[in-house]
Amino acid sequence: MELLDAFKWRYATKKYDTSKKVDQTLVDKIVEAAWIAPTSSGLQPYEVFVITNQELKNKIVPFAHDQEIVADCSHLLVFAAWDNYTTERIDKIYNFITTGREQPADRYQAYTDRLKSIYLNRPAEVNFEHTARQAYIAFAFAIAEAASLKVDATPMEGFITEEVDKLLNLSEKGLKSVTMLPIGYRDEANDWLVNLKKVRHPKENFITEIA
Amino acid sequence: MELLDAFKWRYATKKYDTSKKVDQTLVDKIVEAAWIAPTSSGLQPYEVFVITNQELKNKIVPFAHDQEIVADCSHLLVFAAWDNYTTERIDKIYNFITTGREQPADRYQAYTDRLKSIYLNRPAEVNFEHTARQAYIAFAFAIAEAASLKVDATPMEGFITEEVDKLLNLSEKGLKSVTMLPIGYRDEANDWLVNLKKVRHPKENFITEIA
Repeated sequence: MELLDAFKWRYATKKYDTSKKVDQTLVDKIVEAAWIAPTSSGLQPYEVFVITNQELKNKIVPFAHDQEIVADCSHLLVFAAWDNYTTERIDKIYNFITTGREQPADRYQAYTDRLKSIYLNRPAEVNFEHTARQAYIAFAFAIAEAASLKVDATPMEGFITEEVDKLLNLSEKGLKSVTMLPIGYRDEANDWLVNLKKVRHPKENFITEIA
Repeated sequence: MELLDAFKWRYATKKYDTSKKVDQTLVDKIVEAAWIAPTSSGLQPYEVFVITNQELKNKIVPFAHDQEIVADCSHLLVFAAWDNYTTERIDKIYNFITTGREQPADRYQAYTDRLKSIYLNRPAEVNFEHTARQAYIAFAFAIAEAASLKVDATPMEGFITEEVDKLLNLSEKGLKSVTMLPIGYRDEANDWLVNLKKVRHPKENFITEIA
């Protein structure tokens, strides 16, 4: 199946079949897609939480507009972005990069100095907006991977992030939740959205070609 | 090829082969992936510009850290998000949705009223951060689609958005540029990044399973 066909197949699943669980090998691939996603300067400023604990999923429901998909899904992925850039965080990933590429220790010194001179002089809120945007790339890669594997998913940002942060102890990890992605298998008979047409802006309003 | 293999194959191309152009059918698919991407409430609050005009590409180079990939790529995609939400914009897409799904005219009245009560009472900057995040989903879908088609691409946010906005007359369209995606084919012999290992955080630091 071409990826574009998978993109047309997918939809924001509104009702999950609670009897069906996503195989761990498929979950691993979806998370790996998020892991391998590109980010600004390769900083990868986010983490992913994979929740199957039913009690915890149930606790999140009231903070997500009471949407039962959070409880009914097979696995709930939460994407959490760094609350700020720090020297330690930038050095840590660039140490991994230097080692992983078997390069001299100072290979990226000038580059990371420049990153620090920009990021460490900005308010945390500005940096968080930047890390959150990067998390959206990973979020989208996970959505794409799930679709390619015919695993249903529901991209969600409609939840009270502060409450989810508390439930996952994110603040002590220097993280803030950004998006969630319940995955599982659709309950086709009971999903109001499954048969509704996917509608987008007319392409002539969306695409401008400058030749 | 599995999508995950395509994700491992892709990298932020640093040197394009100027003699190779991407076939229009492939460009169309990459743009269609951006078009079909999911967004919050289905508002799809962004547009895509596809630039092949060499003079314009050249003009953008100095505003993109002098990166020649902008001039050398086959097609330059620019993702521009709505600068704000408005009644007209929300109504327009929901009119399309209602018509496209052959539903009663007031089917989404309560829903769009709620969206408006939230979005129209927020500062433009807050709404733009929201529309920009949606544009990142489309951006990532385009990156994924390009990888699946073995088209090289360079995700870019390092450019002076205000200058690109001026060159594309975005402000009169109520848009602001967010990211760019040069696409084309790698010049393997002259690309310093092509053979360097893709390094990410160790998975145990990146993924937390809560069972």
